[in-house]
Amino acid sequence: MTIQVIVLNGGSSSGKTGIARCLQAVLPEPWLVFGTDTLVGAIPASMQTSAAGIEFAADGQVLVGPRFRALEAAWIEGIAAMARAGARIIVDEVFLGGAASQQRWKAALDGLRVLWVGVHCDSAVAASREIARGDRIIGMAASQAAVVHQGVGYDLEVDTTRAEALDCARAIAAHC
Amino acid sequence: MTIQVIVLNGGSSSGKTGIARCLQAVLPEPWLVFGTDTLVGAIPASMQTSAAGIEFAADGQVLVGPRFRALEAAWIEGIAAMARAGARIIVDEVFLGGAASQQRWKAALDGLRVLWVGVHCDSAVAASREIARGDRIIGMAASQAAVVHQGVGYDLEVDTTRAEALDCARAIAAHC
Amino acid sequence: MTIQVIVLNGGSSSGKTGIARCLQAVLPEPWLVFGTDTLVGAIPASMQTSAAGIEFAADGQVLVGPRFRALEAAWIEGIAAMARAGARIIVDEVFLGGAASQQRWKAALDGLRVLWVGVHCDSAVAASREIARGDRIIGMAASQAAVVHQGVGYDLEVDTTRAEALDCARAIAAHC
Amino acid sequence: MTIQVIVLNGGSSSGKTGIARCLQAVLPEPWLVFGTDTLVGAIPASMQTSAAGIEFAADGQVLVGPRFRALEAAWIEGIAAMARAGARIIVDEVFLGGAASQQRWKAALDGLRVLWVGVHCDSAVAASREIARGDRIIGMAASQAAVVHQGVGYDLEVDTTRAEALDCARAIAAHC
Repeated sequence: MTIQVIVLNGGSSSGKTGIARCLQAVLPEPWLVFGTDTLVGAIPASMQTSAAGIEFAADGQVLVGPRFRALEAAWIEGIAAMARAGARIIVDEVFLGGAASQQRWKAALDGLRVLWVGVHCDSAVAASREIARGDRIIGMAASQAAVVHQGVGYDLEVDTTRAEALDCARAIAAHC
Repeated sequence: MTIQVIVLNGGSSSGKTGIARCLQAVLPEPWLVFGTDTLVGAIPASMQTSAAGIEFAADGQVLVGPRFRALEAAWIEGIAAMARAGARIIVDEVFLGGAASQQRWKAALDGLRVLWVGVHCDSAVAASREIARGDRIIGMAASQAAVVHQGVGYDLEVDTTRAEALDCARAIAAHC
Repeated sequence: MTIQVIVLNGGSSSGKTGIARCLQAVLPEPWLVFGTDTLVGAIPASMQTSAAGIEFAADGQVLVGPRFRALEAAWIEGIAAMARAGARIIVDEVFLGGAASQQRWKAALDGLRVLWVGVHCDSAVAASREIARGDRIIGMAASQAAVVHQGVGYDLEVDTTRAEALDCARAIAAHC
Repeated sequence: MTIQVIVLNGGSSSGKTGIARCLQAVLPEPWLVFGTDTLVGAIPASMQTSAAGIEFAADGQVLVGPRFRALEAAWIEGIAAMARAGARIIVDEVFLGGAASQQRWKAALDGLRVLWVGVHCDSAVAASREIARGDRIIGMAASQAAVVHQGVGYDLEVDTTRAEALDCARAIAAHC
């Protein structure tokens, strides 16, 4: 069985993006990486600060409105279509809605061979890495660390608290 | 008739991205912007400097290999699927292959209402803006200015040589 | 007389940075570019949103507090010292305080050969370019366009409303 | 004794920048962070690929030419002047020349209270983090890991192989 889509789910500053880049380096075929950041970068600037779009509150809470949800649904369909057209895809995601978020992706990716990966990181360690990154709203890491995994089912779980991104990527690659 | 996809085609430093952002600001509904830069950012780092992937030569030439072409075909299918799923999309593209590039997009966007927009800029002016941007390989603007429009058909053409991006965006928005 | 420091002063989105990069390209000797953005990038993240530091309000106003002012004074001394040590320097600045801001720089640059350049841009055009840039707080361009030039004396003034950055840079280079 | 300048020296991807940001967060007073990246960002684009300036070779070697060295000397003088004018400064540096690089900084910082900090990271771990960052030339981390510390004297040494940036920052802050 060859995997067509790898979904990495974890809170902000849990290390998903580093793992995604390492996966691109260790997997023999070329894989595309897309994630929440790609979608947020594609929406109008005005939607990035509005209740109907997506809001990044000062305390690190992320609030998602109906207009963003509608665009996100189309985005997920598009990613699924890319995979069906033959591209191998790594999805770098934050399931703010936990099980409900996974369900949305599962429905769209129906029929594709998907590897579901949980990316964990101790909440305090993720919060300290958020400070070290310097460009993140403080509080996102702590507020997302646990909630994004609630009710989510995985094929594989990694923990970046003590493991390097490259080692996590190798463990994931062994399942592809 | 309501437009579902706006395709902006023009050479490097012709002003496409600025027009795309202004379109997001002036159009009443939310539009997503995706482009060549999104795809290049999603491919493995190793493919960004290899003959099979995409190479940015020191003289500004961009060389695209078979592996990149295959991923690009899937990417185009995905963008079309997003539009079919209801998202309005602005495509910020460089048709390095002229008419052949347009044909690839046309086939994928079949059945969708597309506005084809040519973004022109005097070659010398685009080259001077490339210097002002500071982060571009010198020579891309001049080498692409004419070739990307060869054999390409448009619904509308704008020229940023003397017009501001916002004015070009307003002219385009009038056709949506 | 050989110029040691070129000070470019203009409002947000007036085109200073593009001119600075073009100056680096057209001047025969290597010049360093430093500006407000360099200093803002060097201060603690917490100072970028506090009344004692620097605040970028939602309406485009920039509010500078006493702690930022103190660090800025040391920063200006440092730039002057680099010029005295032999580096040619282009300062990319926004004189939020008009004549008072220029006076601070004048005192620090005492004894150095400085070319003071005013970078103008029609307020509506600068505001439209701010939208096209996509990453700026809307309103900064309009609120700064006139106020930054109040009471400021120049050796040379350029206007980017209709002129390209490279042409402005050539006009400035002719005075170095 | 109150420290005026903290010099962090370590190879590429050893974690200096993360420590610097954490230091800004934990130290009670505002500190400015400047480093090699600031200087490289300030030089002309043409010098970033020339033998007289600074070259980043495909194998990760960094080659520094005479024109870059001259500008760097003035830059170091400027940083020292900022500290003398009252700004607290964190220098985020790579001593490519080992002891000789430290000597240049020592001469310029004469009379200031400086804390010299060595930032170590196991070479293989730094190389794996370089892959995870995605935007670095592969090979820099390994080629610099040991050489930058040769003959350099420190007040304090930290190791990011297993410690988080925030913990390293707290250890350093205890000496300020």
